[in-house]
Amino acid sequence: MTTRLDQQIAFLTEADKLKTIVRATELTDNSRYENSAEHSWHLTLYALVLADQAGPDVDINRVLRMLILHDLVEIDAGDNPIFGDYDATAMAAQEKAAADRIFGLLPDDLHQSLRPIWEEFEAAQTPTAQFAKSLDRFQPPMQNLASGGGSWTDFNVSEEMIAQRVGTKIEIGAPALWSYAKDRIATFFAARTRP
Amino acid sequence: MTTRLDQQIAFLTEADKLKTIVRATELTDNSRYENSAEHSWHLTLYALVLADQAGPDVDINRVLRMLILHDLVEIDAGDNPIFGDYDATAMAAQEKAAADRIFGLLPDDLHQSLRPIWEEFEAAQTPTAQFAKSLDRFQPPMQNLASGGGSWTDFNVSEEMIAQRVGTKIEIGAPALWSYAKDRIATFFAARTRP
Repeated sequence: MTTRLDQQIAFLTEADKLKTIVRATELTDNSRYENSAEHSWHLTLYALVLADQAGPDVDINRVLRMLILHDLVEIDAGDNPIFGDYDATAMAAQEKAAADRIFGLLPDDLHQSLRPIWEEFEAAQTPTAQFAKSLDRFQPPMQNLASGGGSWTDFNVSEEMIAQRVGTKIEIGAPALWSYAKDRIATFFAARTRP
Repeated sequence: MTTRLDQQIAFLTEADKLKTIVRATELTDNSRYENSAEHSWHLTLYALVLADQAGPDVDINRVLRMLILHDLVEIDAGDNPIFGDYDATAMAAQEKAAADRIFGLLPDDLHQSLRPIWEEFEAAQTPTAQFAKSLDRFQPPMQNLASGGGSWTDFNVSEEMIAQRVGTKIEIGAPALWSYAKDRIATFFAARTRP
C-alpha cells in the first residue's frame, strides 16, 4: 500500500535528479558548470538578499516557492541555455509533459497547491512571477562577471545580445538590477576588447 | 565607492563557493557526492512538500529562510559528516568566525535581519528551528535508502548508530518522519544482512 508519505518521498527522491542537470553558467572558480539544483538554491538566496528590489505587490514568500520549484521540469525537459537556439513551442510542450509527470508524483492536494506556483512563474504575468524571473536572469551575468566570461565566452555573446536576451527580462521585474548589471557588463566588455 | 548593491552582490558571489563544499551523502544515482548548495535546495523542497508534518507553532516561511542560510558557514568551516568524529566546541567557534566574515559582507541591515535566522537554526530551541533541523537530518537517510547505502556504507554505520545520531534529532521536530524512516531503515538493514 502506498501511503501519503510514500508519495511525498517519491517526489522528493525524484527531485534529486535536478542535481544532474547541467547549465551553461560556470561556478565563479571556473571549476565546472553549475547544475540546476544549486542554481535554484542560489536564486533563493538572491531573493532574500535583494528583496529590497521588489515592487510593493511582490510576495517574497511566494517568490521563494517559485524559485525552489521553477526548474524541476528540467529533469525531463533539460536546460535551455539562454544564448542557445531552441523551439520555444516544442519546449513549452515538453515542460508541460514534465510537469504532469513530476508534480503528478505528489498527493493530489500538494499537486494542486504547488503546480500553480510553477505555472504562475512560467506565465510571468504577476509582479511576483516577474520579480522571480528577473532574478533568474540576473544571476547568470553576475556569475559570468565573477568567472571571467563564462557562457558569454562559450556562446560568443556580444554586449548587445545580453541586453536583448537578458536585460529586457531583468528590467521588467527589477529595473535597478538591470541598470547595475548593464554598467558592470559594459566595463567588462570594454576591458576585454581593449588592445 | 562601494554601493549597497556592490555589498549585496559581493555576498551572493561569495555564497557561490557553497557549491564546492562536498557532503558525505551521495546522489541517488551514485554518480557523485552531494554538495551543500544543492543539499540546501533539496531541503527547501522537503519543507514545501512535508509542511504537513510541522507542528502548529512552526513558521514555514522562516523554515525556508533557515534552510537557505543554514550551511553558508561551511564555506569557511567545512562540512562535518554526521557519522564522523569532530570537536563540537572547536567547530562551533569556527562556524561563529565564518558567520562573522560571511554575513559581515552584507549591508548592516541585512546582516542584522539574516544572521539571527541562522543563529536560531543553530540553537534549535524554537519549534521552527527544530522542524528545520529535523528535515536536515531526515534528508540524508532518504538519500541513503535511494542510493543503496551511501554514507552508512562509507562510515560502516549500524542501525543503532542511525537511531542515536539521526533518529533522536528527527524525532524532536518531526516524530512521524522518524517513525517512517525507522521502518524503512529496518527493512533496508534486514535485506542487507540476510545471507
